Amino acid sequence: MRTSIATVSLSGSLTEKLTAASRAGFDGVEIFENDLLASPLSPEEIRARCADLGLSIDLYQPMRDIEAVPAEEFARNLRRARHKFELMRRLGADTVLVCSSVHPLAVDDDALAADHLRQLADSAQAFGIRVAYEALAWGRHVNTYGHAWRIVEAADHPALGTCLDSFHILSRGSDPKGIADIPGEKIFFLQLADAPLLAMDVLQWSRHYRCFPGQGGFDVAGLVRNVLETGYDGPLSLEVFNDVFRQAEAGPTAVDAHRSLLVLQETVGVATPPAPVVPTGVAFAELVTPDAEPVSAVLGALGFARTARHRTKPVDLWQQGEARILVNTSGAVRRTGTGLAAIGLESPDPAGAARRAEALLAPVLPRRRAAEDAPLDAVAAPDGTELFFCATDRPELPNWRADFADGAGGAHGTDAVGGSHGTGDIGGPHRTDDNEGSHDPGVTGGPHRTGVHRIDHLALTQPWHHFDEAALFHRSVLGLHAQESVDVADPYGLMRSRAVTNADGSVRIALGVGAAPTDDTVHAQHIALATSDVVAAARRFREAGGRLLPIPANYYDDLAARHEFADGELETYRELGILYDRDAHGEFRHCYTMTVGRVFFELVQRDGYRGYGAQNAPVRLAAQHTARAVIGG
Amino acid sequence: MRTSIATVSLSGSLTEKLTAASRAGFDGVEIFENDLLASPLSPEEIRARCADLGLSIDLYQPMRDIEAVPAEEFARNLRRARHKFELMRRLGADTVLVCSSVHPLAVDDDALAADHLRQLADSAQAFGIRVAYEALAWGRHVNTYGHAWRIVEAADHPALGTCLDSFHILSRGSDPKGIADIPGEKIFFLQLADAPLLAMDVLQWSRHYRCFPGQGGFDVAGLVRNVLETGYDGPLSLEVFNDVFRQAEAGPTAVDAHRSLLVLQETVGVATPPAPVVPTGVAFAELVTPDAEPVSAVLGALGFARTARHRTKPVDLWQQGEARILVNTSGAVRRTGTGLAAIGLESPDPAGAARRAEALLAPVLPRRRAAEDAPLDAVAAPDGTELFFCATDRPELPNWRADFADGAGGAHGTDAVGGSHGTGDIGGPHRTDDNEGSHDPGVTGGPHRTGVHRIDHLALTQPWHHFDEAALFHRSVLGLHAQESVDVADPYGLMRSRAVTNADGSVRIALGVGAAPTDDTVHAQHIALATSDVVAAARRFREAGGRLLPIPANYYDDLAARHEFADGELETYRELGILYDRDAHGEFRHCYTMTVGRVFFELVQRDGYRGYGAQNAPVRLAAQHTARAVIGG
Repeated sequence: MRTSIATVSLSGSLTEKLTAASRAGFDGVEIFENDLLASPLSPEEIRARCADLGLSIDLYQPMRDIEAVPAEEFARNLRRARHKFELMRRLGADTVLVCSSVHPLAVDDDALAADHLRQLADSAQAFGIRVAYEALAWGRHVNTYGHAWRIVEAADHPALGTCLDSFHILSRGSDPKGIADIPGEKIFFLQLADAPLLAMDVLQWSRHYRCFPGQGGFDVAGLVRNVLETGYDGPLSLEVFNDVFRQAEAGPTAVDAHRSLLVLQETVGVATPPAPVVPTGVAFAELVTPDAEPVSAVLGALGFARTARHRTKPVDLWQQGEARILVNTSGAVRRTGTGLAAIGLESPDPAGAARRAEALLAPVLPRRRAAEDAPLDAVAAPDGTELFFCATDRPELPNWRADFADGAGGAHGTDAVGGSHGTGDIGGPHRTDDNEGSHDPGVTGGPHRTGVHRIDHLALTQPWHHFDEAALFHRSVLGLHAQESVDVADPYGLMRSRAVTNADGSVRIALGVGAAPTDDTVHAQHIALATSDVVAAARRFREAGGRLLPIPANYYDDLAARHEFADGELETYRELGILYDRDAHGEFRHCYTMTVGRVFFELVQRDGYRGYGAQNAPVRLAAQHTARAVIGG
Repeated sequence: MRTSIATVSLSGSLTEKLTAASRAGFDGVEIFENDLLASPLSPEEIRARCADLGLSIDLYQPMRDIEAVPAEEFARNLRRARHKFELMRRLGADTVLVCSSVHPLAVDDDALAADHLRQLADSAQAFGIRVAYEALAWGRHVNTYGHAWRIVEAADHPALGTCLDSFHILSRGSDPKGIADIPGEKIFFLQLADAPLLAMDVLQWSRHYRCFPGQGGFDVAGLVRNVLETGYDGPLSLEVFNDVFRQAEAGPTAVDAHRSLLVLQETVGVATPPAPVVPTGVAFAELVTPDAEPVSAVLGALGFARTARHRTKPVDLWQQGEARILVNTSGAVRRTGTGLAAIGLESPDPAGAARRAEALLAPVLPRRRAAEDAPLDAVAAPDGTELFFCATDRPELPNWRADFADGAGGAHGTDAVGGSHGTGDIGGPHRTDDNEGSHDPGVTGGPHRTGVHRIDHLALTQPWHHFDEAALFHRSVLGLHAQESVDVADPYGLMRSRAVTNADGSVRIALGVGAAPTDDTVHAQHIALATSDVVAAARRFREAGGRLLPIPANYYDDLAARHEFADGELETYRELGILYDRDAHGEFRHCYTMTVGRVFFELVQRDGYRGYGAQNAPVRLAAQHTARAVIGG
């Protein structure tokens, strides 16, 4: 189907909006009147610009307060409408949106409304223009799509039809099944928007909180199915505005917008992009840093061993169990400072995953590699994180691991703190079989000396204006499941966090966003490492010279008030800075390293627990602020 | 009365909050549990810190989900409560807040609730602690203050009373008159918050949109009167949290908070700060600039003449009619770039106005003056603008004008564009009696050659986090009237604007705020100049070399559709870039100069019209963005 977007959905000047819509792949636009009024381009120039950009002008909008008003008012309205029809002729737009009246003088008289709309359509027809009448959810007398349709039906004019808007219909809780009663050719236009389920004044809700389909709580797909069943063959058009999009760059917003329509079309079965290939695990996390020493010291203390080095690039592989972390000191890396730059996702079909991503407008990354390197498929997430689709140790597929030569004592090597590591030494620096504090004897004695066996989750900070889009991206492009968004109080503002996961929890990514644009750099990313015994792991980390984030004593007094613990248990947590939570499924114990650059590590022991310790996040955030205030940085 | 503030109302660490509350003059605080948990200070250290800062700890809060739950749950609650009572003893807090339960297992059984609260109070009493039970507006079974009081009454325990919270009472529309039925000594605590009148879910409303008394739509003063009539003699305590305050610096927020309580006490008659002295006009606006040339050029073209120079500082006085603009090139000025730094307000009693301002915590400015200068009273507004209380040409009072020596051809002088000005030449550079385009013969022939006769209004950009406080400041400190806040669509975000005025409109200040913190510098301030003939004024400005902001042609096509104009009128507006609006009181015509630094000028002709052209603001903002894109800067 053709796709369209209202210019009011995007930020910037009209030409910026049109360019962004075109680049994102939209077929057409709705021209919002105020965007035209504020543009220095004439209607003819706008028409030419749209043609150059391959955009049709599918709708001019809106006309307001036209119908069911006193006669002299209506005469003024017809005069005003003729001016606009003339403008639309210059613009090359053939359909105009008329919203149901909110005029204080409008009367509740369907026959009068139909008569006025018939006269308006008559006037429009002379200009070759069609009128699409829409019920605003807060219309004075007409505020349901059924009511608007009855008036259109009564007016019975070929140049008059109805416009359906998913927000106006679903925000009022109207049943969209009744759309089946409208002949498809009388549905002149379909506007789509989603919204979070909020109990608030519908006008404010509409003006400030609309979002793209799939980002909110409405069943937009169900409504679209109802509309398609009528035979409607006009465009699917997005009319979405909220306070965030108004400030966001038009280009990325337009891409997010178009992706939402592609996913919607897939959902309702009118488009078949390549199927999602859900990742089955985390192959690696890649840190970039201008100086490998601080990160290497932390990894060494965490029990990781530097097991291999990339054959052609200054990238070390650190490993412990199935947890693999790449440390990239290449000067070519995009970011400055130490940060989490890439994630390798185990994929049953890396090439298929990349095809899916590309079809859903994810930027495909050039394979910056040497001739002999494995050809890895990778795309960029909305926050710039590179996602590599990996097939670790599957001989029939390109294997990123084959680009690494075992052994790390070479020319590039930096010895980790606490000891040096020979080839194949993946046990880390902790050689003593110290059982102290270990609750799981299976951990000791094996090669994994802090018991870290895999990456539990990755926490990524999102650009402020693209938080909802990030969840839609990970859901639609990667086929992950998005959990509910939670608010977390930071001492200096409210953070939001939302996790996306695969079915068995082997891929978990926590998307976070700060309180305001300026907070982007305040909130660090982190890598959470799964261990079966966080107490032992924390002890050994500390013994190896690692520094854990100190947690206030008051937190433990509160834990004592809320839960009962075994003798000495709480004292151990207090000593090490281990936090505790529980949910219906089990217990959670976790602690944090100090931050290096923009990254810190978390050690987590989840015994059935399904969350991410959101309950403890305010304490952790405050402790990090305190630590920053003490040590600087 | 004693004043208090909940730590959750302020941003930052607990010690930052305490310091801010103390500096702003609060007598005490409510300690919010999460602030304590996240603090590295022990309860004893917090107690000592509060004592050092002169703050009492008036409340520890909150305890939740205590009452009317199953027996084993209540046993756990009592255990938890004892831990908290012990903590409170260490902290030196003697009153704890208990919120009505939202627990899913809580039952609707007042007798059980009373029994549980009696047991809790018994336990508290052993620690010397009082329990204040409060109905949350969204409490599961208890959500009105009357209901909470009936349970407290039934429990009949000396250590059990009620806590009243203006938000919980007024957000539900409860009538506060019923408070009279509660004995004052059983009201253990009073928490105050205001909120804008929003139709939304009360929990979200409470968590994100509370504001200080006088900033919202609730009759908080009326409620406080009801409470005082009971004999309540505890503190007035603010419990206010919203997304903005969470991010704002604690210091200024605490000052704004305390000011709101001072005004509230004045309103209910328990405090008598010096009475407001309402300004009667604008004596001058002061621009600071590192380079006088560009501003002087615009002022010259606007028909201003440089009529005097400050005796001791590099400050020129430009004048036309009663419009006076100071151009300050002093290196000592705080701001960089060209900006509006100060406003002189005509005051019937400058010293009284300053006393009022100081009593309401406005920072009194040092009189940075030479020995012979007039001793002017001045305070800083929340946005940093300096407000001078002036008595222009009133011999019995210090006169700012006397600091200026007539004539501007001296050593500091910069010739304005279009001509040079001798002493007393206040006619500007336009010497010809050109009547072309003038609709008001009275303007021509007189000394004021573009007909500017006074400053119509000043538009100031507010710091993002202090928009609501700014209105409260101007209202309470200056005694101005605050109009409704309006949203204005900028191409890159939503702006908010709110005007404060005196009764006859001779002082009008439009307070504006951008869409996000990062936009602070995008939106310029401006000085609007009143003229009785904007067409003539605009023509002469242009003839004198001034550049008007170009307005898109599409805007005039829309004007033609909306209104009927006399022959040629619209063409004149189109040619000059004059915008048009009307309201129930009259018509409004206005146009804009190009921006210099952060300042531009507006020429306005208001024929009865009472607004500020908000209807046209999106077009103006877009035109300014276009102009910036074209000329840079």
